[in-house]
Amino acid sequence: MDRYRVCEDLEALDMERGRLYETITVTWDESMKGNAAPIGVLCTGKRSVTLYLYHGTHTLQNILETGRFTANITLDPLLFTESALADLDDEMFSQHQDYLYLKGADAFFTAEVESVREVVKRDRFRESPVSIVRAGVREVMKGDGFRIALNRGIYAVIESLIEYTRAEISDPVKVMERVREMNRVARKVGGPQEKEAMKRIIEELESKVNHRKSPGQ
Amino acid sequence: MDRYRVCEDLEALDMERGRLYETITVTWDESMKGNAAPIGVLCTGKRSVTLYLYHGTHTLQNILETGRFTANITLDPLLFTESALADLDDEMFSQHQDYLYLKGADAFFTAEVESVREVVKRDRFRESPVSIVRAGVREVMKGDGFRIALNRGIYAVIESLIEYTRAEISDPVKVMERVREMNRVARKVGGPQEKEAMKRIIEELESKVNHRKSPGQ
Repeated sequence: MDRYRVCEDLEALDMERGRLYETITVTWDESMKGNAAPIGVLCTGKRSVTLYLYHGTHTLQNILETGRFTANITLDPLLFTESALADLDDEMFSQHQDYLYLKGADAFFTAEVESVREVVKRDRFRESPVSIVRAGVREVMKGDGFRIALNRGIYAVIESLIEYTRAEISDPVKVMERVREMNRVARKVGGPQEKEAMKRIIEELESKVNHRKSPGQ
Repeated sequence: MDRYRVCEDLEALDMERGRLYETITVTWDESMKGNAAPIGVLCTGKRSVTLYLYHGTHTLQNILETGRFTANITLDPLLFTESALADLDDEMFSQHQDYLYLKGADAFFTAEVESVREVVKRDRFRESPVSIVRAGVREVMKGDGFRIALNRGIYAVIESLIEYTRAEISDPVKVMERVREMNRVARKVGGPQEKEAMKRIIEELESKVNHRKSPGQ
């Protein structure tokens, strides 16, 4: 059995306002049939989160039906992968009060929907209807094995630094393209430190590229 | 002051054999002038690591001079960035016995070089001489704030899953290219779980792409 300690709020999981965390979100239909999917959860306060959900998913359908979900914290790549590519077996879920959660999660929190708003999201590829789900955090359950809630911000910075060190030997246009993509990730999911780090890297890269281009060189 | 607990070996930092961790490696010259740089450290056992160092860096020069270094664990994006782009000020380093380490590191370990071997590394861009530095771990110091040692494996998996969900709306060739790049990362830095996850994702993507191409569709 997993052992969890009830915690005050999301601070107990080092989750900070304005950062987006990679979770496996568990939902269920009215017959308590569970569903799991990797979902980014934006922390908007100590006891509140926002989800951006594409239409046509079980996650959204279930959330609209029950008004509830759990966000599950794990570092297990196979759990992320299986919940993205396939339906998890029923035995992968456990029940806590009226909520299902992922068996073996490092931590999880229960949440109740407070509002759902429909918007249209435009990206490079197309326009898609998206539901913005605001939810209140009910109970935060922290397991012994909890380390961190995954945030892609630090990785965007590390990837950019790796690109930076390649700048002298590879195509500067490609390097800049990749770093700008990582900047979008950092701005979307990261905190002030990641944003500041990316700003520094881009400034440095630009001066490197301009320096190389300058006629005196 | 930072508070550290002396630990038995790299297991105390959840570091596993075969995985490569993103550290800030601190070295110094004979006058104890410190240098810091983001360096991937391959864990090769409970008390051993391997570094792959490009020539012409202070890190390699100092390691050849003193035969010692510390690998510093942090999640701070600004520390990674500053140590990559600039020289850290002297006050950023602290001394532990004959070793310098990064002030404020979540954890660090001291290491002594056991062998250095020269090889030529070929990548997409060019051939570069690389020194393979094998080192023995001396002391492992774990701070109160320690969470994890950064490993890019789980992020390669998450990025690939994000690409996977885009596969239906974006250019499948680009998606596959990006996932294969992430597969290279996972194979280089990850453990068996990340490698298995990437295998699953690529299989699923390939069947999706082939399915779409098949004449019956």
